[in-house]
Amino acid sequence: MAFSERVTRLKSSLIREILAAAQRPEVMSFAGGLPAEAMLPALSWDAMPLNIGQYGMSEGEPQLRELLAAQARALGVPCQAGQVLVVSGSQQTLDLAAKLYIDQGTQIMLEGPTYLAALQIFQLFGADCLTVQLEADGPNLAALRANLERHRPAFIYLIPTFQNPSAVRYSEAKREAVAALLDEFGVTLIEDEPYRELTFDGGSAQPIAGRLKKASWIYTGTVSKTLLPGLRVGYLIASPDLFPHLLKLKQSADLHTNRVGQWQAMQWIGSEKYQQHLVELRSFYRERRDAFQVALARHFSDLADWQTPQGGLFFWLTLKQPLDTRTLLAQALDQNVAFMPGEPFFSEPDQHLGSLRLNFSHIDPARLDEGLKRLAAVVRQAQHAQAA
Amino acid sequence: MAFSERVTRLKSSLIREILAAAQRPEVMSFAGGLPAEAMLPALSWDAMPLNIGQYGMSEGEPQLRELLAAQARALGVPCQAGQVLVVSGSQQTLDLAAKLYIDQGTQIMLEGPTYLAALQIFQLFGADCLTVQLEADGPNLAALRANLERHRPAFIYLIPTFQNPSAVRYSEAKREAVAALLDEFGVTLIEDEPYRELTFDGGSAQPIAGRLKKASWIYTGTVSKTLLPGLRVGYLIASPDLFPHLLKLKQSADLHTNRVGQWQAMQWIGSEKYQQHLVELRSFYRERRDAFQVALARHFSDLADWQTPQGGLFFWLTLKQPLDTRTLLAQALDQNVAFMPGEPFFSEPDQHLGSLRLNFSHIDPARLDEGLKRLAAVVRQAQHAQAA
Repeated sequence: MAFSERVTRLKSSLIREILAAAQRPEVMSFAGGLPAEAMLPALSWDAMPLNIGQYGMSEGEPQLRELLAAQARALGVPCQAGQVLVVSGSQQTLDLAAKLYIDQGTQIMLEGPTYLAALQIFQLFGADCLTVQLEADGPNLAALRANLERHRPAFIYLIPTFQNPSAVRYSEAKREAVAALLDEFGVTLIEDEPYRELTFDGGSAQPIAGRLKKASWIYTGTVSKTLLPGLRVGYLIASPDLFPHLLKLKQSADLHTNRVGQWQAMQWIGSEKYQQHLVELRSFYRERRDAFQVALARHFSDLADWQTPQGGLFFWLTLKQPLDTRTLLAQALDQNVAFMPGEPFFSEPDQHLGSLRLNFSHIDPARLDEGLKRLAAVVRQAQHAQAA
Repeated sequence: MAFSERVTRLKSSLIREILAAAQRPEVMSFAGGLPAEAMLPALSWDAMPLNIGQYGMSEGEPQLRELLAAQARALGVPCQAGQVLVVSGSQQTLDLAAKLYIDQGTQIMLEGPTYLAALQIFQLFGADCLTVQLEADGPNLAALRANLERHRPAFIYLIPTFQNPSAVRYSEAKREAVAALLDEFGVTLIEDEPYRELTFDGGSAQPIAGRLKKASWIYTGTVSKTLLPGLRVGYLIASPDLFPHLLKLKQSADLHTNRVGQWQAMQWIGSEKYQQHLVELRSFYRERRDAFQVALARHFSDLADWQTPQGGLFFWLTLKQPLDTRTLLAQALDQNVAFMPGEPFFSEPDQHLGSLRLNFSHIDPARLDEGLKRLAAVVRQAQHAQAA
């Protein structure tokens, strides 16, 4: 069997396995990043024209591209519709970026921790991953500068707004400083913002892409967290030097993004109805976040530290007494509880033991307390066993 | 600007440019492979459950996988639903296969001519393309054996039923012989069948994948040619040794295929309504094929040779007096006529001058004769200029 060299780096996906286990209805799952089903909006398809069924443009629907460009400009990302590429979910942006930049051994820079599925696709293409450590308000700037002085990464991949998994939101000062550093060293930015609209305190900082003066950039978003993940409609907006390459890569990957999903997204983006939906969504998730915080404080205060997230879908717990949380998974599932171990969110998992990512958006509130209680018991038991 | 090495092989897509030019309403286009808009079926979405909007499985919708497996078994491809992977159009199968098999310099084998977009994605990943020449009833078997004795390609990519671009359909004998050769030499088959159901004489031969006894295989299809390309729903069925790798590659590419398109496809595949639609589609395209044949005979008899296609969407013309048909494109577009030059369908275009691919499914019948007349005039003029 002669597979490609890259297949040796094709890891079994922990997410997939945990989510499969979490399918069992009796499982209380904190593992995924799923929107609450109660908040999936009802769709109307009546007005969709028949010819939406025909082949479409690789770039995406012209009207949707206009709407997305207007939305980005309103956030402070100067762009035209011609820089917008509609993709099959923002995961595809990462695939296209990997193809554009990564040969075996190409250095790239990521936050530590970072988004698991980004790490997977970049490593599949053979990236050598440099890490810049995250603090409560963004990356450690001295470490970032030192890294950029020593290395020339092909790009830096950042999730500055309610990061997955850490929930960190970069401060205004750090956004400015990161932009200045990327301009100074001429490093391309990939800025991933799936969670931007899920803000619980109303904050909305300008994306880093909009603060750059010279560096190339790709800004990527999705309707998956605010509308419907099942549509598989995401987008990227790129600086004009990158766009033509990304467009050709998109075409060779799947010709174009599904048009029925694009048409549906077009009915929402920029509309009053969408604004109203976002208001309800934020309020719904804020309540879930608050209830989660209370239950966490009850069961985990002696076990872990965490920041209360001001947006997004996750709590990130750091155990006071570190242990490899991957080893807790089997016992948790035995107790019908699923969670995401924190280690796989680092490019060198074994050097970062003792974190957990807990999703608060999807769990049934009636089972929340019981789920966290059982999870805490699993942690406590493992720590006793370790101490013994 | 430090792009990956593969980007140096990212060609400007001739198809994209021609299709863009063909957007002008005054252009008579024989260039694309678009279904006739008159035959796009009306869709009903009323019964779609709300939770189809949620994240789905990377494998695809379970019910759709069952329907696709049953359809494949009926054609003589022994398989279970567990071997079916729903993809974002069958182009994505080629992207996943490229990732699974191709490093820079990996030898693969293709028909000459072959599908342009397959050539592009395989070459993007760095494949070294070996060609086996197509005859009217399939590949030249002696050439295929000689090639397999000399080389060990990672896979062979074949479109045995109404090939794009040549419209060739493999004979029963050649299907058997190809399967036996692949078993003998242990070469993986990628069998691409977007046009199988568009048969004008009712023929339906068993896929080569179903005739294999030992070799690994990927069989791929789509609803794009028979239902709606805008859904971006295709599928692959793979031998059990390949499936787990392809599934992980799908997940890293875009998590899963859009579920609204999958749900719509599920309403059709295997249904009475779909069978009825296919009957109408075949009859509609057969009439267009017949009218095209008459107009071609009128304008091209002295200029080119061709076989009347028994299925699919294309006529493949070979000029009696070869010239590089890429050089005709600008003049044709000046005359408001678009077509696909044949050269880019070969891995070594400059060694295969003088073919044209003409699509017969999408042209307005009222403009067919005028379009072919103008195209013939462009060919004739170029040949006179060449002779002078």
